[in-house]
Amino acid sequence: MFDPHWNALHGVPAYPVERYGALADRIGGILMSRNDVLLMQAEATVALEAVAVSLARPGLSALNVVTSSYGSWFGQWLRRGGAAVRDVAAQPGLPIEIEAVAKALDAGPHVDLLAVVHAESASGILNPLTRIMALAQARGIVTVVDAVASVGGHPLDIDGLGIDIAVIGPQKALGGPAGVSALSVSRRAWQLILRDGTPRDSILSLADLKTWVDGGRRGLPGTPSPLEFFALEATLDRIEAEGLESVIARHALAASATRTGLTALGAGAWVPSAKASNLVTSVAVPESLTPAALITTARRLGVELTEGVGTAPARLLRLNHTGPRAAFQPVLANVAAFGAALRQAGHPSDIAAAAEAISAAYSR
Amino acid sequence: MFDPHWNALHGVPAYPVERYGALADRIGGILMSRNDVLLMQAEATVALEAVAVSLARPGLSALNVVTSSYGSWFGQWLRRGGAAVRDVAAQPGLPIEIEAVAKALDAGPHVDLLAVVHAESASGILNPLTRIMALAQARGIVTVVDAVASVGGHPLDIDGLGIDIAVIGPQKALGGPAGVSALSVSRRAWQLILRDGTPRDSILSLADLKTWVDGGRRGLPGTPSPLEFFALEATLDRIEAEGLESVIARHALAASATRTGLTALGAGAWVPSAKASNLVTSVAVPESLTPAALITTARRLGVELTEGVGTAPARLLRLNHTGPRAAFQPVLANVAAFGAALRQAGHPSDIAAAAEAISAAYSR
Amino acid sequence: MFDPHWNALHGVPAYPVERYGALADRIGGILMSRNDVLLMQAEATVALEAVAVSLARPGLSALNVVTSSYGSWFGQWLRRGGAAVRDVAAQPGLPIEIEAVAKALDAGPHVDLLAVVHAESASGILNPLTRIMALAQARGIVTVVDAVASVGGHPLDIDGLGIDIAVIGPQKALGGPAGVSALSVSRRAWQLILRDGTPRDSILSLADLKTWVDGGRRGLPGTPSPLEFFALEATLDRIEAEGLESVIARHALAASATRTGLTALGAGAWVPSAKASNLVTSVAVPESLTPAALITTARRLGVELTEGVGTAPARLLRLNHTGPRAAFQPVLANVAAFGAALRQAGHPSDIAAAAEAISAAYSR
Amino acid sequence: MFDPHWNALHGVPAYPVERYGALADRIGGILMSRNDVLLMQAEATVALEAVAVSLARPGLSALNVVTSSYGSWFGQWLRRGGAAVRDVAAQPGLPIEIEAVAKALDAGPHVDLLAVVHAESASGILNPLTRIMALAQARGIVTVVDAVASVGGHPLDIDGLGIDIAVIGPQKALGGPAGVSALSVSRRAWQLILRDGTPRDSILSLADLKTWVDGGRRGLPGTPSPLEFFALEATLDRIEAEGLESVIARHALAASATRTGLTALGAGAWVPSAKASNLVTSVAVPESLTPAALITTARRLGVELTEGVGTAPARLLRLNHTGPRAAFQPVLANVAAFGAALRQAGHPSDIAAAAEAISAAYSR
Repeated sequence: MFDPHWNALHGVPAYPVERYGALADRIGGILMSRNDVLLMQAEATVALEAVAVSLARPGLSALNVVTSSYGSWFGQWLRRGGAAVRDVAAQPGLPIEIEAVAKALDAGPHVDLLAVVHAESASGILNPLTRIMALAQARGIVTVVDAVASVGGHPLDIDGLGIDIAVIGPQKALGGPAGVSALSVSRRAWQLILRDGTPRDSILSLADLKTWVDGGRRGLPGTPSPLEFFALEATLDRIEAEGLESVIARHALAASATRTGLTALGAGAWVPSAKASNLVTSVAVPESLTPAALITTARRLGVELTEGVGTAPARLLRLNHTGPRAAFQPVLANVAAFGAALRQAGHPSDIAAAAEAISAAYSR
Repeated sequence: MFDPHWNALHGVPAYPVERYGALADRIGGILMSRNDVLLMQAEATVALEAVAVSLARPGLSALNVVTSSYGSWFGQWLRRGGAAVRDVAAQPGLPIEIEAVAKALDAGPHVDLLAVVHAESASGILNPLTRIMALAQARGIVTVVDAVASVGGHPLDIDGLGIDIAVIGPQKALGGPAGVSALSVSRRAWQLILRDGTPRDSILSLADLKTWVDGGRRGLPGTPSPLEFFALEATLDRIEAEGLESVIARHALAASATRTGLTALGAGAWVPSAKASNLVTSVAVPESLTPAALITTARRLGVELTEGVGTAPARLLRLNHTGPRAAFQPVLANVAAFGAALRQAGHPSDIAAAAEAISAAYSR
Repeated sequence: MFDPHWNALHGVPAYPVERYGALADRIGGILMSRNDVLLMQAEATVALEAVAVSLARPGLSALNVVTSSYGSWFGQWLRRGGAAVRDVAAQPGLPIEIEAVAKALDAGPHVDLLAVVHAESASGILNPLTRIMALAQARGIVTVVDAVASVGGHPLDIDGLGIDIAVIGPQKALGGPAGVSALSVSRRAWQLILRDGTPRDSILSLADLKTWVDGGRRGLPGTPSPLEFFALEATLDRIEAEGLESVIARHALAASATRTGLTALGAGAWVPSAKASNLVTSVAVPESLTPAALITTARRLGVELTEGVGTAPARLLRLNHTGPRAAFQPVLANVAAFGAALRQAGHPSDIAAAAEAISAAYSR
Repeated sequence: MFDPHWNALHGVPAYPVERYGALADRIGGILMSRNDVLLMQAEATVALEAVAVSLARPGLSALNVVTSSYGSWFGQWLRRGGAAVRDVAAQPGLPIEIEAVAKALDAGPHVDLLAVVHAESASGILNPLTRIMALAQARGIVTVVDAVASVGGHPLDIDGLGIDIAVIGPQKALGGPAGVSALSVSRRAWQLILRDGTPRDSILSLADLKTWVDGGRRGLPGTPSPLEFFALEATLDRIEAEGLESVIARHALAASATRTGLTALGAGAWVPSAKASNLVTSVAVPESLTPAALITTARRLGVELTEGVGTAPARLLRLNHTGPRAAFQPVLANVAAFGAALRQAGHPSDIAAAAEAISAAYSR
């Protein structure tokens, strides 16, 4: 039987097309950038693919910093489009060394484009963005920064550092929806994109989005998902109320408390503080143990630990303190559950000292 | 301007009137009682007032066990209706002693009605329900049990113990909405209620609800709130999926882990385990400290402690492990935050040992 | 299995206690009254019962205007509290005649209180409020107005007319939640209420709410339902954005278009325009037909007609154009479905002319 | 200030990864197809682009039926990938003639692939799918059908007609979310897709989704949007409860009632019934009038008419009776508002007769 209530139950009206522009402006305000801000109705990985596909062409030369599979994919996308790409890869599970970037830039032929991921949620590392951008700016190189796992967790000075394209997603530190993403694009980046042959009429076309900007930002192409855009509005309400600086400080505290707790536990974080993401802390699993068993034990306590993803030499476990989890309660539970799981597996862990340390970190 | 979307935004259709009966049956299933189950669109306190008002009359004699202001109110409501009420009160902040009830029953004249609160969220105590009901049953006394703060946290054998009227609310251990409540009423209780002069056409009339039952449970009187009834449905879905026994076991574990943690901290729970509620654990604040300061410190850690309410001789703080909070993460955070607050106030507290103890309790 | 997500799924946090005061102020702003505004966590019928119970006492003399069962209940509640109540009843399904009220006031002994329902949703009538209030004010009588089915549909000048107590609910013209209600209470009404023996510690106690006002409006007694209060906030956002005058104008248009449509159909509204509610239009069912059959036919078209409730001599059907239904689409569908149902039952109805008339009314 | 409630306010937990498989199975059940069903976290247009990009290669020869810009895009995407594409285009705003397809197939060289849109929401037309598929099947041609605007509105016999790839979206007749889509892919289509050089690691890669199927459908790549997937679940609950046949019948009735109403109005639908979509009815705007003015008038009545999109010779207006709008109330309001707008613009329109006709259509 047809239920006359079902539309109301569905409950979400069309997102008013005239509000997309305001959404973009609010994201621009949070990013504090004067560049064009574009909305994309797709997860941030698609936005990254669109950047690569929109930039790539024969004759374009790029240096691609690889610290996870996101970087590998980005290089692959550029190459498919005919670009000449040199990868400069970090040691597995570690950030790139600034010297490696400098050396790669100096060694090879001229480079038009440099791409780097700011923070990696796969391993919990943070790349030295400020210094990398300085190297690029000194050489007049157009830059692409994947800031999906850093926005809201670390300062991101797009205009100050001269980031030509920054890609963000609301679903990590901002605690928002996962089906939309955003990009900032500088005038210089547009010049590189808007050439003959750039893709059009495609989910991967930034040029389509430029048409949207130039046309007065009236509606997005395709059928927009009201769920995602209303949720993005609610997320921006919240972030503006808390203040982006407070959001970042909250993640910094969660990261340092987690780190202190792990040290007290006897485990120790995988990378030193200066090289670590504020959203996720990774820790090496002792050789005698399996990550899967620790994850299972922690889950029985209601705590989700996850395996590190990618190429780290040691098997990493990740403690998640992102978005709403950047708070005392989850931070303490993460470390205590990890400690309990270690002990259950016959490995010593000083849960007591860890709890002390985390409480102290939050009590200051 | 009128927004044609606003109804959709509101998003909640009328609750289908023909589903109230099924709701009552599902609550009956959870309570495992064959008595009539009544729904009431009001918080549980109103349901309790309705019970008293519907039962009270000149000539009715009642023994009223008082372990918090809920008990005091119940006695007051009975008296207003003309009943002769004897209160038997526990020591402040403690459960009633079974001997006191027995003595009161034996001492005085015949009693028609006995009323008792099963668990008190104001002080975190649990009354000896099984033994009190046995005393009442041996004497043929009609019984009223306020199970609002015990259902889902403790076993409640309505038919086995012979509870004539039990009042429950979904908003505590069941984690549901706060604007509806439910009652089970035995045939014997109906005989007491359905006399000449019982209130009718009133929010406080159980007789009105009997008319609802006898009329085939087609709709509730008045204008039902769809928000509350849809939320109640969702709550029952969840509870049925988890299983009431698991819900109770989860609260029992949360209570014992909290208690063990407090002992390790050096604080100690206010009442011994056998006399304590599984939803809330209360702890006495050291004389030199003020509850308000401890609450403020804990709130900075994102943890809500609350003051005990009522007549306890010591000032009590309550650690809440009710509903979704009956889990490792909140239990650990509650105790650690209490410990941190103590220490901040210059009072020693062994957070380390507490975290150890709680992790151990949950790792078993 | 316990699902760690269930709290998030439930998704509604506690309503911040410090925002109740602001809610009351916003309702006061919509009502444009300087009287105290009280919130009540119960449907509006309970608020009315509370008014009667809080006012009633031996020695109080009241004139009670009865135009539906709400009025009958109000009188009954006053009488139960010991008041001397004279009912002045309208003819079934019709508003009260102002002369009847005047005569009743002049004929009998002095009256302390006058109670009247502004608009009746049971029959779709509107009582002559302005003139009734003038009679009361000339005699210094305290007045109670049930404005549940008129607020948002008709002007309601509480301070100008001297309404001492007005009861409203957000669930009708305002399109809001059904589990909360509000009252405005004048200083003079408080003097009548706050005497010795007024009920306290009861859902039906206005004195309890006065304590709330005088105590700085910090939290409501009992366990507030976050669902209701967040929904009330959202409702007020919407009403403030549309403007109460626009809301009223929208209901007035819906009522006059419905009425014009019914006339064109050949049916005719039950009461003349000046005596009719703007929320609901009632129409007499021809003698040869049964309301139930018409309702069933209309429901097959997805349109809900309902039977008039109460004591009307003819059987009434009600066309609902309340809240989100005060718009062209539902108004047209209501009348067309009623016409189709008449015809299905073998009764002539000029659907064509009705559609014309309604389209014309909305096209002006 | 950081609000500890914000996660709860956000209110949507991660979508359980192990439930994606069940979602795909339920869509397969609705489509009644034994082919692989793939989920895609993107609007349906992206799914179509992915189909073209995954199939296209040098050496592939395709016949592409063009009845709107979706068809044009599809051809363009194939050509970009190196395929040899012949377009066979319908007259503007009309369905393709079956003879044109037959002729194109017979005239040219062998064709590997045939692509066609089932129904067009831009103009409200329906292509002769059964006969086109018969032509393709007789020639062993792999077929792609864009069923986004037909699923739920028209029968779609994927296995019976031999549709190799069907693309659907839940946001039209099914009334679901707009940010997910689904495809069914036959074994024969997979053989064409899974060649060397098919795109991988891309939002546009069907091969990636095949890996998902073959790997046991454990999670989708990337970061799934819980909003979309929970909404899709709710949509499937609803569609399964109503039954797909009822959903289709409801759209068929809405289309025929709209058509009858327009004829009575004196306007007439743009295409004859057999060539029309059941989701949208388009009507030609009289030469002397502008669509924009009609749209504005209708909007004042709360009814959204939209301009036809594309290459129709006449300017078309569309009446939307899709999903929840496939019901008496919106159908009647659409036609009446269109009639009122015509008249406002000085053009005669028999609203009366239209309302009669629609009421009669729904009363049968």
